[in-house]
Amino acid sequence: MKVGIIGATGYGGLELIRFLYNHKEVENLTLFTSSEEGTVFSAKFPHLIDINDQPLQKIDYDVLSEFDVVFASTPSGVSSSLFPPLIDKGPKLIDLSGDFRLKDVESYKQWYKKEPAPQEAIDVSIYGLTEWNEAAIKEAKLIANPGCYPTAVLLSLLPLLKEKLIDPSFLVIDAKSGISGAGNKPSQTTHFSEANEAFSIYKINEHQHIPEIEQAISMFAGVETKISFNTHLVPMIRGILATSYAQVMPGVTQADLIHCLKETYKNHPFVRVIDDAGSIGTNRVKGSNYCDVYAKLDERTGRATIIGVIDNLVKGAAGQAIQNMNVQLNLPQTTGLQVVPLFI
Amino acid sequence: MKVGIIGATGYGGLELIRFLYNHKEVENLTLFTSSEEGTVFSAKFPHLIDINDQPLQKIDYDVLSEFDVVFASTPSGVSSSLFPPLIDKGPKLIDLSGDFRLKDVESYKQWYKKEPAPQEAIDVSIYGLTEWNEAAIKEAKLIANPGCYPTAVLLSLLPLLKEKLIDPSFLVIDAKSGISGAGNKPSQTTHFSEANEAFSIYKINEHQHIPEIEQAISMFAGVETKISFNTHLVPMIRGILATSYAQVMPGVTQADLIHCLKETYKNHPFVRVIDDAGSIGTNRVKGSNYCDVYAKLDERTGRATIIGVIDNLVKGAAGQAIQNMNVQLNLPQTTGLQVVPLFI
Amino acid sequence: MKVGIIGATGYGGLELIRFLYNHKEVENLTLFTSSEEGTVFSAKFPHLIDINDQPLQKIDYDVLSEFDVVFASTPSGVSSSLFPPLIDKGPKLIDLSGDFRLKDVESYKQWYKKEPAPQEAIDVSIYGLTEWNEAAIKEAKLIANPGCYPTAVLLSLLPLLKEKLIDPSFLVIDAKSGISGAGNKPSQTTHFSEANEAFSIYKINEHQHIPEIEQAISMFAGVETKISFNTHLVPMIRGILATSYAQVMPGVTQADLIHCLKETYKNHPFVRVIDDAGSIGTNRVKGSNYCDVYAKLDERTGRATIIGVIDNLVKGAAGQAIQNMNVQLNLPQTTGLQVVPLFI
Amino acid sequence: MKVGIIGATGYGGLELIRFLYNHKEVENLTLFTSSEEGTVFSAKFPHLIDINDQPLQKIDYDVLSEFDVVFASTPSGVSSSLFPPLIDKGPKLIDLSGDFRLKDVESYKQWYKKEPAPQEAIDVSIYGLTEWNEAAIKEAKLIANPGCYPTAVLLSLLPLLKEKLIDPSFLVIDAKSGISGAGNKPSQTTHFSEANEAFSIYKINEHQHIPEIEQAISMFAGVETKISFNTHLVPMIRGILATSYAQVMPGVTQADLIHCLKETYKNHPFVRVIDDAGSIGTNRVKGSNYCDVYAKLDERTGRATIIGVIDNLVKGAAGQAIQNMNVQLNLPQTTGLQVVPLFI
Repeated sequence: MKVGIIGATGYGGLELIRFLYNHKEVENLTLFTSSEEGTVFSAKFPHLIDINDQPLQKIDYDVLSEFDVVFASTPSGVSSSLFPPLIDKGPKLIDLSGDFRLKDVESYKQWYKKEPAPQEAIDVSIYGLTEWNEAAIKEAKLIANPGCYPTAVLLSLLPLLKEKLIDPSFLVIDAKSGISGAGNKPSQTTHFSEANEAFSIYKINEHQHIPEIEQAISMFAGVETKISFNTHLVPMIRGILATSYAQVMPGVTQADLIHCLKETYKNHPFVRVIDDAGSIGTNRVKGSNYCDVYAKLDERTGRATIIGVIDNLVKGAAGQAIQNMNVQLNLPQTTGLQVVPLFI
Repeated sequence: MKVGIIGATGYGGLELIRFLYNHKEVENLTLFTSSEEGTVFSAKFPHLIDINDQPLQKIDYDVLSEFDVVFASTPSGVSSSLFPPLIDKGPKLIDLSGDFRLKDVESYKQWYKKEPAPQEAIDVSIYGLTEWNEAAIKEAKLIANPGCYPTAVLLSLLPLLKEKLIDPSFLVIDAKSGISGAGNKPSQTTHFSEANEAFSIYKINEHQHIPEIEQAISMFAGVETKISFNTHLVPMIRGILATSYAQVMPGVTQADLIHCLKETYKNHPFVRVIDDAGSIGTNRVKGSNYCDVYAKLDERTGRATIIGVIDNLVKGAAGQAIQNMNVQLNLPQTTGLQVVPLFI
Repeated sequence: MKVGIIGATGYGGLELIRFLYNHKEVENLTLFTSSEEGTVFSAKFPHLIDINDQPLQKIDYDVLSEFDVVFASTPSGVSSSLFPPLIDKGPKLIDLSGDFRLKDVESYKQWYKKEPAPQEAIDVSIYGLTEWNEAAIKEAKLIANPGCYPTAVLLSLLPLLKEKLIDPSFLVIDAKSGISGAGNKPSQTTHFSEANEAFSIYKINEHQHIPEIEQAISMFAGVETKISFNTHLVPMIRGILATSYAQVMPGVTQADLIHCLKETYKNHPFVRVIDDAGSIGTNRVKGSNYCDVYAKLDERTGRATIIGVIDNLVKGAAGQAIQNMNVQLNLPQTTGLQVVPLFI
Repeated sequence: MKVGIIGATGYGGLELIRFLYNHKEVENLTLFTSSEEGTVFSAKFPHLIDINDQPLQKIDYDVLSEFDVVFASTPSGVSSSLFPPLIDKGPKLIDLSGDFRLKDVESYKQWYKKEPAPQEAIDVSIYGLTEWNEAAIKEAKLIANPGCYPTAVLLSLLPLLKEKLIDPSFLVIDAKSGISGAGNKPSQTTHFSEANEAFSIYKINEHQHIPEIEQAISMFAGVETKISFNTHLVPMIRGILATSYAQVMPGVTQADLIHCLKETYKNHPFVRVIDDAGSIGTNRVKGSNYCDVYAKLDERTGRATIIGVIDNLVKGAAGQAIQNMNVQLNLPQTTGLQVVPLFI
């Protein structure tokens, strides 16, 4: 099987390489670039010496057309023009950016401040939240891989919203991410001396994952709602923990919440439902494709605290993308992804 | 002026020393201990060589009675029995633990799982949220210094609750703290290899600062409410950022929120109201006694995101305690506390 | 193949599990304990939910005798008495502690301040520095897996010492380790608030790895020398970088140094020789079994700077132990160990 | 007293502000810029809101001539042309860069790869290692403030070299620094996700502080030597620890080493000699102007391990610069610098 990656120099791309290198169905893994043609990959990323010593290839549609799968792991605003000519050309396309996630191009323009992809491409794209969209993913030509925050949020909230155990009318989602979510481009925000020993809130009420989450809640739970959603930077490399708050519906118990989560995910290898938790940390899933979810009823207030935890670069990006590829190719979902979380 | 510290080996105690060493009215600073009598302090804490090379003193009520001020910076359940005999004996007492904060002893028993202080001692204790209780603090014999989380939460929320700009009926407070808040006693939770590169939620819906916040909202804003409150551990040493969510009252604008905060704190040197924020981080206040507050109306949802940021060891503990001492002694609040935040 | 681990709750043990879970020849992986019999492993380590939900087993020699391989990943002073009865009983034994490394029991007593293992057991133990002792490892009943620091130091220095490119008479080795090297037991030294944002030197001139390194230099390079060796704690979880300094022998060039390293390791998959380095960091090897080595001649001084980098928990512990197991079992050395370094 | 800072937006500049704000002799502190004229300083650095809300001023020699002291905290290659016109114009000049440290302009060109300052300016510049050059500093018009690494290295080594307790012929200095030493300009090396959880060596044998250290050893200890010197990046913000190795002279004892250090620094408030050390960490001095020094004889090898610890931004930059200013102005050296180390 021939697999190509466009944008391999980003953190999503590096994680794709990390997992695909041990994916038994991948015979040929080729890295493409728009700007660094000829650069030997391991010269740029010396952790890959002896693992990937190939030069980066120029993006060439004729060449790409012969691949089985092509991943794009580029900043938003790139695959919107790069991918459309490849639809119907052969390879299954999996986009890790936000360019094909929002069905409403006006919404994309408003939140991303960029030109949207062509409507026809958006129309055929399938939202790749694996556990909730498997049938469509199996047939997809173009997968819009979910955002990191939406993955943690949706996997924890969707079962409770769909089964009407929580009230969607006042839904607060407070999310926290490691700094790798900001990508590999240096900036003042991600400068070690200013990012370490600091915890910050950013894009207050304005994160571009808001419309993605609302769209998916509508799509998979049949609920229209406007969420309160904020994002914070944690001085660590990997991991997202999302803490959500909602009133539970009358009569709903703690057991109901856990039962709903367990039923939903009983046949899904990468979502683990936590039974009873004193504390929950991102190091439960570090380096792995797991999403751990939990819900706790607060009897005093009648509200539930709902938690989702992922590694933002794996289940929140490259891991879920490979999980989707496996679904498309009728492989077991776990192929190439059965790594044990690092914990430390 | 003679000042004593009981519990100087904890992080609150170390911060008291850091600031009192440069407090121009403090002539004599003596450290007391229940278990390490005779230990030369700088032998235990070598960062204090040449600064405090005195042996720890045994706790002796006759000796303590001659002090002007005595701070207790002990774990909960200690000053509840240690401090009552000193009331009316002379020194002004400032307790950094939770032992004298809750007026309702049943609530203390329920949340702290410990025996409460005598009701008479609790009755005379004054809650030391400086900016909101100055008159009472001035006359206080025994100050219950606020908890770290409550300080960040209350300073940001109280003005908006008191002026009825936000609806208290569904109040979500999502708080995050550096690990120094867990104190100096090693545990698995605070073991570097398990705490670093991890972000976790703990005591879900069960943190003992919940009743303290609700009591203070009642006391200072005249509002009875049950809050949703959760706490998270951030892999950094210092800092608390609290993110709160509430519906704004009809007609309330962004300008109203900021105006209310600015009016409230215009004469208070340690609360800074942020005008317009792209991002807000704990390193704005690191090492200092500042609390920075901000509120942002989300027009889409009609809810406000309200933020308070402090250094948990300073404004959230030792700094506010000294600020209270200054008020008690009719000194300028800023005496000894005018340090510039470290930023990095 | 049946594999047992004694001491699975330590960090070495957790890493053994991480790799053995994906080792295709391991059918049965059982965890043994001296003190926590019956504890479900994933209840203690929730990152292993769905991966290892078995109860810990009591240490029982009859049971252990039926295993193919038994690893001990216990603190020093434990396997010295635990392992000897199992020699000749069937399973291949691999000890990750220092108990069987030093051939001279007096030296063990002096540096470890503990009772040594029986001399007979020490006599049959084989030092498991895979790249330098493969033939003996293949036949070993009991492997003394090298210490973390010695692994990084020896792999970088041995080729140059053996080929007499550097002068052993004044050899300075300055080593730095992530904090996981201190194990999983909480202490003041490893308490997050005191370990983070701090870099420290410890056991000045007195680290117990000194005699191990000198013994191996004698054994593999035929050189008797007394090294200067110090160890430092880096505020990160994983990784060791050792910087060594020695005069080069007359006429030795930069090319000679690199050529020597390359020749030595040309058929060894886990040692990578760096060609030319502006900077070298531990994240080149994070999470993997690689050791990266480099040497740079300083023309001004006639001295070489020699560098070895490993993940202390992998090549410095569990990874090398599995590599040794593979050698013992005539499997390719890379079986189960072909993971890509995480980099971030 | 009027004090100006050129280059206030760098980390050295921010630390100057932090200390000068509490310096009782400084009445007017003005910040100058070559590129950001008019920017309100606290708008750029919100931790300084209410502390420094002034606009940055254009660099103007007529204005600067009226100041009592002018600090330059600019990258190397800037003050070499900026400062010479101000010599003899009135203000005492203190340069925190490397531009006036090396007396040999050829050496500057070789190590800095930049155009040197005019020889006349270099000739009048005084090397500001306070404890070793106080008399000259008192009369200086232009102070070349020492580099961060040289400060930690020289304060620990000079007494032993000058008193001939250690052999200078084979001197190994292995230094480690927090990342703030790299300045405030973002780069891949200082990008949080790549710098955190990584320890690296850089500029192997080629750091520009090598000639500075050798020149100062010659100047203050009267010894000509070529050092082995390497520098490493530690994933923390602040702190330098330098570990040095040298043979001791015949007959020299541990007591001799400590006695020599104590005698040298007995009247110097900012150098603390450690008596006996199990471990020594940078958090002993964090945020303060202290330098802690120690030496330990290794009886096995006859070599000493010598340690110097500083906060690179304080004693290694801004703090020492202010200490020098105090000397120039006949103030007590500790004025404005008496802060207690943060420890955590």
